[in-house]
Amino acid sequence: MQSVNFQQLTPLRFLERSAEVFGDKLAVVCGERRYSYHEFADEVTRIARALKASGIEPGDRVAYLCPNIAEMLVAHFAVPLAGGVLVAINTRLSADEVSYICDHSGSRILVVDHELLATAADADTVDELFAIGGDGQHRSYEELRGRGSLEPLPWEVEDERATITINYTSGTTGRPKGVMYSHRGAYLNSLGEIIHSEHSSSSVYLWTLPMFHCNGWCTTWGVTAVGGTHVCLRAVRPDAVWSLIDEHRVTHVNGAPAVMMSIARAPEAHRLDRGLTVTTAGAAPSPTMIAEMEELGARVIHVYGLTEVYGPYSVCEWQPEWPGLEPAERARKLSRQGVGMITADRMRVVDVDMNDVPADGTTMGEIVMRGNDVMTGYFRDDAATEQAFAGGWFHSGDLGVMHPDGYVELLDRAKDIVISGGENISTVEVEQALLSHPAVTDVAVIGVPDDRWGERPKAFVVTGPEGEVGESELIDHVRSMIAHYKAPDTIEFVSALPRTSTGKVQKYELRAHELEARAASPG
Amino acid sequence: MQSVNFQQLTPLRFLERSAEVFGDKLAVVCGERRYSYHEFADEVTRIARALKASGIEPGDRVAYLCPNIAEMLVAHFAVPLAGGVLVAINTRLSADEVSYICDHSGSRILVVDHELLATAADADTVDELFAIGGDGQHRSYEELRGRGSLEPLPWEVEDERATITINYTSGTTGRPKGVMYSHRGAYLNSLGEIIHSEHSSSSVYLWTLPMFHCNGWCTTWGVTAVGGTHVCLRAVRPDAVWSLIDEHRVTHVNGAPAVMMSIARAPEAHRLDRGLTVTTAGAAPSPTMIAEMEELGARVIHVYGLTEVYGPYSVCEWQPEWPGLEPAERARKLSRQGVGMITADRMRVVDVDMNDVPADGTTMGEIVMRGNDVMTGYFRDDAATEQAFAGGWFHSGDLGVMHPDGYVELLDRAKDIVISGGENISTVEVEQALLSHPAVTDVAVIGVPDDRWGERPKAFVVTGPEGEVGESELIDHVRSMIAHYKAPDTIEFVSALPRTSTGKVQKYELRAHELEARAASPG
Repeated sequence: MQSVNFQQLTPLRFLERSAEVFGDKLAVVCGERRYSYHEFADEVTRIARALKASGIEPGDRVAYLCPNIAEMLVAHFAVPLAGGVLVAINTRLSADEVSYICDHSGSRILVVDHELLATAADADTVDELFAIGGDGQHRSYEELRGRGSLEPLPWEVEDERATITINYTSGTTGRPKGVMYSHRGAYLNSLGEIIHSEHSSSSVYLWTLPMFHCNGWCTTWGVTAVGGTHVCLRAVRPDAVWSLIDEHRVTHVNGAPAVMMSIARAPEAHRLDRGLTVTTAGAAPSPTMIAEMEELGARVIHVYGLTEVYGPYSVCEWQPEWPGLEPAERARKLSRQGVGMITADRMRVVDVDMNDVPADGTTMGEIVMRGNDVMTGYFRDDAATEQAFAGGWFHSGDLGVMHPDGYVELLDRAKDIVISGGENISTVEVEQALLSHPAVTDVAVIGVPDDRWGERPKAFVVTGPEGEVGESELIDHVRSMIAHYKAPDTIEFVSALPRTSTGKVQKYELRAHELEARAASPG
Repeated sequence: MQSVNFQQLTPLRFLERSAEVFGDKLAVVCGERRYSYHEFADEVTRIARALKASGIEPGDRVAYLCPNIAEMLVAHFAVPLAGGVLVAINTRLSADEVSYICDHSGSRILVVDHELLATAADADTVDELFAIGGDGQHRSYEELRGRGSLEPLPWEVEDERATITINYTSGTTGRPKGVMYSHRGAYLNSLGEIIHSEHSSSSVYLWTLPMFHCNGWCTTWGVTAVGGTHVCLRAVRPDAVWSLIDEHRVTHVNGAPAVMMSIARAPEAHRLDRGLTVTTAGAAPSPTMIAEMEELGARVIHVYGLTEVYGPYSVCEWQPEWPGLEPAERARKLSRQGVGMITADRMRVVDVDMNDVPADGTTMGEIVMRGNDVMTGYFRDDAATEQAFAGGWFHSGDLGVMHPDGYVELLDRAKDIVISGGENISTVEVEQALLSHPAVTDVAVIGVPDDRWGERPKAFVVTGPEGEVGESELIDHVRSMIAHYKAPDTIEFVSALPRTSTGKVQKYELRAHELEARAASPG
């Protein structure tokens, strides 16, 4: 497990080291709370001890349903320090989805922020639920914490390939799947993030990106590794964001372009002469977004990935000649998804026989990835894992092209995912919710451009003889079934959907129709 | 060996990636020669193929005796790509030592630069010797190269714990020992160097540090990993150094403080407003050195290690309050050897029973290290390996103290402590006091026999153009800075100090000189 010249790779070592090296340095800001690295490590030890005292055994799952608060960050180290596996649940899911994830993951403990207790109401498979800042109706986080102690635990893992977290994806079909990360993968991906986002001990990182998204693209561990300062954030309100940027002299933020744009366009936005590194993913940064960010003094780093690859797998590496390009041309180069990160293997674009497509920038193929930055598999779903790993590469389901310079550009999500404010929305899931209404006979959902969210789902609906249904009634129906943000904003009633000869809906025709309609309207 | 979610860690991947990502970017400058990353990778493939065509089988050793030229850099990838193990030999060794290393390592091929053919004259155990720019008396490097081809080889290794290089240490007693590095260790240490020296694709790295020294502290691989530019250098002449710094807009150099000082004090030295990152090791940077570097616009990063730990193992991490300290106080903090790097385990200071000494900054103990940054062992020397790894930690043989802030300070090699009247006197401390005098440019302190005190410190001093200083004036200067008993009783002014190839003062030569002088004199 640990010998003179071999140490199992684990992010636990990062916090151990920063507590040793940067003990008195500011590690975490959360509202009025402040933790030095000594205090951060102590709190992690205390919660890890509390989990063990609560019966958590090696490999047991512990679920958290929290916004970006200190407790969520602590969990990223405390759960693995206790030998457990962290399941950080998307806070925007419905009660039914949260319940499913707790059940499927076999989580024994669930820690819930008071704002999300209603969402956790159906999670009845866990042994114990603890509420942070709760209403007195549940066991309190303080009770859990009180079971802990500062008795040290080794910041080590017996096998670097063991699971550290499970992140549930909003899959395209059926129920969400549990993506397993290993200690080794998390360690290496963290180092990759540090190098590509140029983190150092001077980093002050503002948590605009949800920690439940791929463990904050491994930044929960990476920023800790360099001894930077985490600035927590309950909700991404631009006024709060700017106030924290100024107060703490923030150097780095991560997030989807839509989120970054809402920040850049806030009334409080102002130029930061000391600079700001913005690492963005989830959609290609538009030329407008890049230009507006650069006007604020920020530098944009574009990365790309999925939950299955620890968040970012690729980075659009700057080339020496790019700074001299016209802004529009530079933005076009930078809008591509790029190349595998320093710790990743190549990123390929392949045809159905797994041959590389020509690097001509036009031939479409599927983006596939491989190596230490790929999940170990889907939890308790060997069939899905086998399918995703067919041919020895992870299949992203994303379609793209390979440019002559070796940079991959994403063209479309093969699985018809709508990315709204950085959140994946499965069109299939929305379609199924719509179809469950008795008046609906056929349906197709596509993503349409949205200034604020990047994309929003729009539904095309065919109604049957069962009767009439209005747009708002149908939207309410969807909201009663799945997370509110997944419900379409607009519904267009049509007499029939365009279909291929084999019966598949031709979504590209709906997209073309939508673009035409938008071009024709002044709105 | 390679699966969808597991890739063996190897520096070979770094060059494969940079050739894919930065194909047309300038990778190597060597005299008039220029290689893009495509050309660099092609040359590596060609030489790897040539080695295979010459009979190199997996695990076979290939020795190189070269200054910092492109062929030496190519060898760091070509030899492992061929499945071999690189033995990069110190160019300042004698013919007898080179012969011993070739024999002991079982090297089958030896590649020698024309300047060093005489040194290679006794290496008669190798199958073939190739001369770079030779005299026609030996097979030429071109002949070797001609056996190669551009037929691709996989940039992979079957086992990340396999040996990539063997570096022979200039041991203080007996024959040099062969320190084995693994692909995994080299990979992780390279990432550590990138993070701590803040390398990026904008890095332009000048090769003032010999590549034969711990494979250039793994920078051969690290600078390649980020897609930086290597600027080769046959010999560290300050005029050539400054000319290359200006011509190529060098961003990073590594080297011992004495080498850095000779560069800083050259007539050509001038301020670099764009900055320069100087990573230094081999001796503590003196306050004077740090101040003079900062005046040039350079930032000093102090690292510490040995051949057995891939070069640097620790780094003197800057703390947030250091920039605000008085220069002398800041330099004192920065002169310490610090803490384990981000990819390393802790660095401990222990007593003979392997207990940590108190963190009081005064109790001396041995510095020990552990983890992925420690060699896999000494080649064909299990007894020495076992001894070095006693108690599950690598024993550096260096003496130091642990400060209350967790930073280790090296006091001296065990043999370099002067014990005077039962008091330990650190020669480093006396040397730094001497160096703070403006007239002093180089210094070494040793212990000499003394009837009353057992030992007393004696200083050998080199003065610069700044002017003369007398023995008593210099002793008074030291006494004004540190305890009187630590000040040397005698000072000998010399024109230069004997140094090893890595810039370390050869104190044993000074001791021998002293003993001779004493034997010859009746005093």
